[in-house]
Amino acid sequence: MRIEMPREIERFGAVRLGGLQKVFELDSGLKKNPSPEQGSAIQQIPYEALYEIEKEMAIVVPVRNERLKLVEGVLCGIPHQCLTIVVSNSPRAPVDRFSMEKDALENFCQFVDKHAIIAHQKDPLLARAFDEVKYKSILTSRGEIRDGKAEGMIIGTVLAWLAGKKYIGFVDSDNYFPGSVEEYVREYAAGFFMSRSRYSMVRIVWHSKPKIAESKLFFRKWGRTSSNTNRFLNKLLSHYHGFETELIKTGNAGEHAMTIDLARVLDYSAGYSIEPYHIINLIEKFGGINESPFPEVMREGAEVYQIESRNPHLHDSGDEDHIKDMSYVAMQVIYHSSVCPEELKKEILKEMAHHRYLPRGERPPRPNRFPALASINAEAFLEEVESTEYGRLIGEGRL
Amino acid sequence: MRIEMPREIERFGAVRLGGLQKVFELDSGLKKNPSPEQGSAIQQIPYEALYEIEKEMAIVVPVRNERLKLVEGVLCGIPHQCLTIVVSNSPRAPVDRFSMEKDALENFCQFVDKHAIIAHQKDPLLARAFDEVKYKSILTSRGEIRDGKAEGMIIGTVLAWLAGKKYIGFVDSDNYFPGSVEEYVREYAAGFFMSRSRYSMVRIVWHSKPKIAESKLFFRKWGRTSSNTNRFLNKLLSHYHGFETELIKTGNAGEHAMTIDLARVLDYSAGYSIEPYHIINLIEKFGGINESPFPEVMREGAEVYQIESRNPHLHDSGDEDHIKDMSYVAMQVIYHSSVCPEELKKEILKEMAHHRYLPRGERPPRPNRFPALASINAEAFLEEVESTEYGRLIGEGRL
Repeated sequence: MRIEMPREIERFGAVRLGGLQKVFELDSGLKKNPSPEQGSAIQQIPYEALYEIEKEMAIVVPVRNERLKLVEGVLCGIPHQCLTIVVSNSPRAPVDRFSMEKDALENFCQFVDKHAIIAHQKDPLLARAFDEVKYKSILTSRGEIRDGKAEGMIIGTVLAWLAGKKYIGFVDSDNYFPGSVEEYVREYAAGFFMSRSRYSMVRIVWHSKPKIAESKLFFRKWGRTSSNTNRFLNKLLSHYHGFETELIKTGNAGEHAMTIDLARVLDYSAGYSIEPYHIINLIEKFGGINESPFPEVMREGAEVYQIESRNPHLHDSGDEDHIKDMSYVAMQVIYHSSVCPEELKKEILKEMAHHRYLPRGERPPRPNRFPALASINAEAFLEEVESTEYGRLIGEGRL
Repeated sequence: MRIEMPREIERFGAVRLGGLQKVFELDSGLKKNPSPEQGSAIQQIPYEALYEIEKEMAIVVPVRNERLKLVEGVLCGIPHQCLTIVVSNSPRAPVDRFSMEKDALENFCQFVDKHAIIAHQKDPLLARAFDEVKYKSILTSRGEIRDGKAEGMIIGTVLAWLAGKKYIGFVDSDNYFPGSVEEYVREYAAGFFMSRSRYSMVRIVWHSKPKIAESKLFFRKWGRTSSNTNRFLNKLLSHYHGFETELIKTGNAGEHAMTIDLARVLDYSAGYSIEPYHIINLIEKFGGINESPFPEVMREGAEVYQIESRNPHLHDSGDEDHIKDMSYVAMQVIYHSSVCPEELKKEILKEMAHHRYLPRGERPPRPNRFPALASINAEAFLEEVESTEYGRLIGEGRL
């Protein structure tokens, strides 16, 4: 992969945010000397260097009622050297969709000679494990794991950590192009290759998103939701810096990756607010405004890389409700942040009223939050799931 | 790349045709020992092995009036280690489209630190070179190189050969997904990795082709043209073998690659008939029916690999005329082949009449043909183009 270095950097306390990076070559070949060249604005990252990082990376694929053809394509796009973790919340009755997914994954793994993890979000063993380690916010009052993609991502993160991986990346299961899944993973690895901190995050912005308009494909650059979310995140940055900025381009980046060390110190927010909340929470915790609960991160610094993928993103198109929802919850997490200035809160309320998300004069609800995973005891968690297939694989150190 | 071995093989004289191969993983990692595993139906081809083949491969991109955004994406998808050859037939007036393409390529090459070749189909130097080496069929009566994609592909093939490359692959310039360009190239390399003959060809069939139907995307597996062309090619095979076969799935494969040694002994057919004619000409020349003009190929054997790509093929959609044309010319080359049995000729005429390509009772025209390039004298050709940029790069052995 050949990629430009971030041309702009904004610092926010211990958080280092990089401007959008352009990819020049998907495959830039081999090279025996993978260290960054000094003074070069464009970086050649050889395959071996990406490979070594990918070997320590888990890719989490949250699945819910996806067509198996699509899931199979996604699996085929994940580089062999990554650990694949499928977290499914598909119904088990009247048809057991989960067992079909499990079967498809096992079949795939047999053909490619690889071990992978598949877990069901409603597995009572997992629920018991979270209960055992006192991570209750993921559980309902009845002791089940809650529905939701964020909850699935948390499960995937814990399993990747238990499996001893150093990096975790997320890809959606509804992607029509295995090649773009492969690209995302490679860009995650490229970001970690460039990073100098154990606490790093890579966020992807799609090159474009094909839309059907008048029976033709139109390649749209920015969706309305992304524009809106990015605008408010940038206003937050601008407020503190006193300079207007447009640096944040990945407020809603579903495609993102983190070092496990970073993933364990961040809080999570439910639903579609999880992605914008990553930025907010970084600033809350390490932006130097509040006192940080993790002084070791303050010392080392946290880094965010934003990369523009080359492939258009062609996925199962969401409906209008879904888009609205994304936009609304992103504003909710910004609104409720302890670092959100009063002025910006007012602006957000205005925007919400304008789009009729909320009656004038009312305050938006606060999305569910999940505390950092740092407090989870690995041994206790593992003990609860040791009877599962993945529990055995993790226990035997085979992943 | 992890790919299955051909499950069926059909032999036709010295021609060995492999059945369609499925790809299981786009990236199967590194491995120090790249030799084919004995007895394994699925082959892991490590990155290093593909890389070594790609280093000896030229990728030809025929361009005509393509949007530059698309061409740039295609360039970004070609692995760094391949030689990129752009053959353009874009107009030079009123706006000099070719100079815009040249500028875009040079800009790209500067960023990725690579040399590439760009040539214009109407360059009088090229025309003179073909004239000099007595390869007149590519020239009009006025001594210009003819219009047409096949002619552009011939130019690309000659330049790749002069540059000392061992393999040549073709990709279209109207592909929206750089990732699928990368996939095609990797599949070409995978085919050559598996091949045991210096005379080998790799043909891609698209996994699917997204079409817009009722404002949604529908992923169509087989176009009507491909079905029709494959059906007649398979009938030809069946006629000689006495067993019905469906082996040929890539009759219209625009995405294909050859060893330069094979590319130099095959004849070419004009327009969209170039791809089906490759199969026909292989059978004509090396199928054991006629005496072969190249006994060395008869001794070593020629191999055809057919690979099913994993990415859907999303390109600038052609119009209905273009589709008709493809179907019609494919039938023309089969009809006019010396190996086409009378019965099949009758069937083809019926089909042509049925689709009103041709009035009943008439015989179809024969598409223009170009003889094998084997007779071309490299030194004489090179001398004519030595003043061009690519001529210099080739002369200095820098490609």
